[in-house]
Amino acid sequence: MGTNGHASTLGEVAALAGVSKATASRAINGRHKVSPQAQAAVLDAVRELGYTPNGAARSLVTRRTGSVAVILPESDERVFTDPFFARLLHQVARSLREHDLQLVLLLAQPGDETRLLTYLRGRYVDGAVVASHHRDDHLAEHLSDVGLPCVFIGAPWTGGERVSVVDSDNTGAATQAVRVLLESGRRRIATIAGPGDMRAGHDRLQGWRQQLEAAGLDSSLVAFGDFTEDSGAAACAQLLDAAGDLDGIFAASDLMALGAMRELESRGIRVPDDVAIVGYDDLGVAERTRPPLTTLRNPIGEMATEAVRILLEAIDHGGRGAPRRVVFVPELVRRDSV
Amino acid sequence: MGTNGHASTLGEVAALAGVSKATASRAINGRHKVSPQAQAAVLDAVRELGYTPNGAARSLVTRRTGSVAVILPESDERVFTDPFFARLLHQVARSLREHDLQLVLLLAQPGDETRLLTYLRGRYVDGAVVASHHRDDHLAEHLSDVGLPCVFIGAPWTGGERVSVVDSDNTGAATQAVRVLLESGRRRIATIAGPGDMRAGHDRLQGWRQQLEAAGLDSSLVAFGDFTEDSGAAACAQLLDAAGDLDGIFAASDLMALGAMRELESRGIRVPDDVAIVGYDDLGVAERTRPPLTTLRNPIGEMATEAVRILLEAIDHGGRGAPRRVVFVPELVRRDSV
Repeated sequence: MGTNGHASTLGEVAALAGVSKATASRAINGRHKVSPQAQAAVLDAVRELGYTPNGAARSLVTRRTGSVAVILPESDERVFTDPFFARLLHQVARSLREHDLQLVLLLAQPGDETRLLTYLRGRYVDGAVVASHHRDDHLAEHLSDVGLPCVFIGAPWTGGERVSVVDSDNTGAATQAVRVLLESGRRRIATIAGPGDMRAGHDRLQGWRQQLEAAGLDSSLVAFGDFTEDSGAAACAQLLDAAGDLDGIFAASDLMALGAMRELESRGIRVPDDVAIVGYDDLGVAERTRPPLTTLRNPIGEMATEAVRILLEAIDHGGRGAPRRVVFVPELVRRDSV
Repeated sequence: MGTNGHASTLGEVAALAGVSKATASRAINGRHKVSPQAQAAVLDAVRELGYTPNGAARSLVTRRTGSVAVILPESDERVFTDPFFARLLHQVARSLREHDLQLVLLLAQPGDETRLLTYLRGRYVDGAVVASHHRDDHLAEHLSDVGLPCVFIGAPWTGGERVSVVDSDNTGAATQAVRVLLESGRRRIATIAGPGDMRAGHDRLQGWRQQLEAAGLDSSLVAFGDFTEDSGAAACAQLLDAAGDLDGIFAASDLMALGAMRELESRGIRVPDDVAIVGYDDLGVAERTRPPLTTLRNPIGEMATEAVRILLEAIDHGGRGAPRRVVFVPELVRRDSV
């Protein structure tokens, strides 16, 4: 507020500094050279008057807002119960903080896409990290049309060639999971798969199937969940009812593995003696199950760091430059469930 | 993009529509009357050219971004583990969706305040709902200085007279908790208090103390936690080591009560036979403890709805108008832990 109680204007700043409004504006926005004397006089006037440049006005000049969005096209329930999102956000927030950028979290449920895109077209953020893509959201195409610098964590279903992607090898990781079960002598290996409309769900199922077919074994024992614990318990019950002789399970998330272990325990089936189980994620759940869970470590922290690095580069280059692609390989973590 | 491959400008839209740029701008921003013919011509031109009004430019005219911030001055770890925040966000998101407003979540750890305020000064959001205030953050004063319409959920420590507040009666609720314990015949009643620098922690401790003093009983059995389960277990251990004869506990969150029950069980102390316990929140944890927890229902859903209602009113009135204050009264939910 100015000393007379109203919000100061650029004109008042310029008058007090003894420069033109254009010079005051250039000095404040800091993208054009002004003389050191003018710069100092303007900054003194800004301090004296408590002048706050309007950010929307400033971003017209600098084309920067100092903020980056994380877009999660998921319900808030899932975001708040799956450690995947907490880890992702923690790491993105840490990386952005190092660059003094404000993290802006945008959740978008099905049906919210139009509003989300309207918001993003408004350029209230400088760029976006997008994670958790469903088959029909077409976010890669939409964001590419909007022209907002963005990096996808996990390959989108469509339009992936138009945006930068930091991915992990879900298919390869799932084949590793099945190999561990095969090496321990299991032959009736089921899977609790993730949602078929999500890349991670689809690709892990593919890996499981490929490895079983390569071993000449039955690849029909499939039940689907939605990555949550309860869905894992329900899927496990389905599998046991359909195939009482199964001796191995690959669950596409640790939470679903945890649910499956609950169901197995309730039926008096021992892990790993009767049924061995491999999970996916290793984000704080796997080491606390009984017995601790053999799993694939989802490199979400490294992926998030890399995504921010690529995004900031893209923002610095004004969103131009060819899309980038980086793939991380999940590591097997051996514990006691196999 | 225009048909010639570059982003269309307002000038091109105006030329194609056969109107002035000022008329095109008024037609697009929709706040000023233009003739139906001009309106139709401009909208046709917008469609034909694929023109996207720059949001930052538009918000200079309309002073609206179509988005509302939820500000949580907490670490991401706490936001993702405490059901309070999930419930709050769920309800705010639902209320905003009804008004076609985009929710923008801003987390701010200690040390992030300057960046957060810079972002808010930029007016990239139309207003803010703020929850979870620590003693020294002075957010109410800062936001009031910035002039951004805002509503606090829970009274801030300072500056509360300058902003609208939707509060709940934490002190009164805590006295209810103690009365239930007294009615069940308990006389050595401890409390596991929340952080002393948070209003909810402070006020619930006050209520516990007032009610014990009114009954002429010892009000020295206090241990502090940070609302998390582990901190509740640690605080309970402290209390039991200091006062082996305690027969009642009021925990300032259900998560802390859950931790306390874990500690009691590990020592072979029965709930409610040996020690009765009352929690606080009733947000999905209390009904699943063994035994189910008697608790105070935190009306966070209602508070969030009311906060959004007041905020949207304030935004509609350009942020003018006297600060509002609404207080909800938490309800006692009787289960089996007393």
